[in-house]
Amino acid sequence: MRLDVVTIFPEYLEPLNVSLVGKARARGQLQVGVHDLRNWTYDRHNTVDDTPYGGGPGMVMKTEPWGDALDEVLADGYEAGAHGPVLVVPTPSGRPFTQELAVELSERPWLVFTPARYEGIDRRVVDEYATRMPVYEVSIGDYVLAGGEAAVLVVTEAVARLLPGVLGNAESHRDDSFAPGTMANLLEGPVHTKPPVWRGRGIPEVLLSGHHGRIARWRRDEALRRTTAHRPDLIERTVPAAFDKKDREMLSILGWAPDPEGERYGRFWRRVEDVEE
Amino acid sequence: MRLDVVTIFPEYLEPLNVSLVGKARARGQLQVGVHDLRNWTYDRHNTVDDTPYGGGPGMVMKTEPWGDALDEVLADGYEAGAHGPVLVVPTPSGRPFTQELAVELSERPWLVFTPARYEGIDRRVVDEYATRMPVYEVSIGDYVLAGGEAAVLVVTEAVARLLPGVLGNAESHRDDSFAPGTMANLLEGPVHTKPPVWRGRGIPEVLLSGHHGRIARWRRDEALRRTTAHRPDLIERTVPAAFDKKDREMLSILGWAPDPEGERYGRFWRRVEDVEE
Repeated sequence: MRLDVVTIFPEYLEPLNVSLVGKARARGQLQVGVHDLRNWTYDRHNTVDDTPYGGGPGMVMKTEPWGDALDEVLADGYEAGAHGPVLVVPTPSGRPFTQELAVELSERPWLVFTPARYEGIDRRVVDEYATRMPVYEVSIGDYVLAGGEAAVLVVTEAVARLLPGVLGNAESHRDDSFAPGTMANLLEGPVHTKPPVWRGRGIPEVLLSGHHGRIARWRRDEALRRTTAHRPDLIERTVPAAFDKKDREMLSILGWAPDPEGERYGRFWRRVEDVEE
Repeated sequence: MRLDVVTIFPEYLEPLNVSLVGKARARGQLQVGVHDLRNWTYDRHNTVDDTPYGGGPGMVMKTEPWGDALDEVLADGYEAGAHGPVLVVPTPSGRPFTQELAVELSERPWLVFTPARYEGIDRRVVDEYATRMPVYEVSIGDYVLAGGEAAVLVVTEAVARLLPGVLGNAESHRDDSFAPGTMANLLEGPVHTKPPVWRGRGIPEVLLSGHHGRIARWRRDEALRRTTAHRPDLIERTVPAAFDKKDREMLSILGWAPDPEGERYGRFWRRVEDVEE
């Protein structure tokens, strides 16, 4: 896979030399180009922004540097279609970046990122490149950053670890939170390792039992417990068939019940206390 | 504000020297300490992980290096209560990191981050430090990273830009997506700057009209358009009183209608097509 990033803070992308992404680059599994947007400015102040049309606070990134930069980056190998690039535009106004989208992007050969600063990039840039390639405007979460560079690191890492051969042990995808399969929609519960006692704190006895069935059940109960506590939204939208009899017993203990009336709202479960209120 | 990060990849935190966070450090508004977890290992392999109790793939980060590292970091100035540290633990099993949480964290004097790798940190570490300070287990989004370092960059940046004097223009918080106020729950629409024509693409005429009321209305309509397209979930959960008559007209054009029956599910609006299906 090939990644290109155009940015006014190339040094922010230093983590792409480190750890998983850095190793994938060293092995030749990833080619990464980081490009300084200011290379495509032509005034002595290297201006990349100007005041917004229509007024208001903040500055808007100008069309010309972005257009010239993207043209030059894309000229090196551009083709239309499945073998061509996609544009990834981090913005709080984008659609949510999810594990599903990470998988989708991991199947593309070439991602070009345009992390913005200030109030964002003049809209015409996205409109222009959308005629040549798919554009993903993505938001990594409901918070505001100073710029898109941190989002590029997040997307890059989520995508890179899905590439064949990048993670050491292929199995370690399997139990990930949000991975498709039996743990879909459940957060992972607690983990423990040696020593058996640390500062007076032991570990749950079941983990020492050697009984695989009981351990699997305990882990699933803990996943249900954690998910109801931290992410009730995930429980609510899980179709009832995804839970077995023991799951339902645990959910009942945790105060949850099926909600047939909520189905048209995609709400299959409700916290029983909500009803009592 | 003081930030400490304990990590096995200190070089991943290089972006804390750059841009907004870097400048805030240079001005003395932020004190940042990045600590290599392996400084608190005592074997010649600098081991920080071991196999999970109960079996399964992946490795778990051990209690001892984390405990010794945190003890040493906290020893320099620890006190209990509002003036003391909070522990921020990035994990996909956490509660969602939101702008609201960024604001909450920005009011604390000292944040200590524990970005993990592998399958996470032995649970007993969080249990132990939760007796001494508030612990925020946070997830920056529904995707899986290779480690928590990218999440630390995200949280740090979202928090730092909220500190007094860190952003150049205090006004630029006001229209942020997710900012409290009239734009709460709406994504920002497109922005434009000079030149008026670029590659044959003009800008919306209203932005040149000088008519503030019409420009404000156009921006709000575009925000509604973008939010219905990319984040229908945000529209759905907006209380009807938050929209004025013109907002409602625009929502109607976009195919949305109030949904009084959905109120008990926190769904105040529905896409009319959903009903027709």
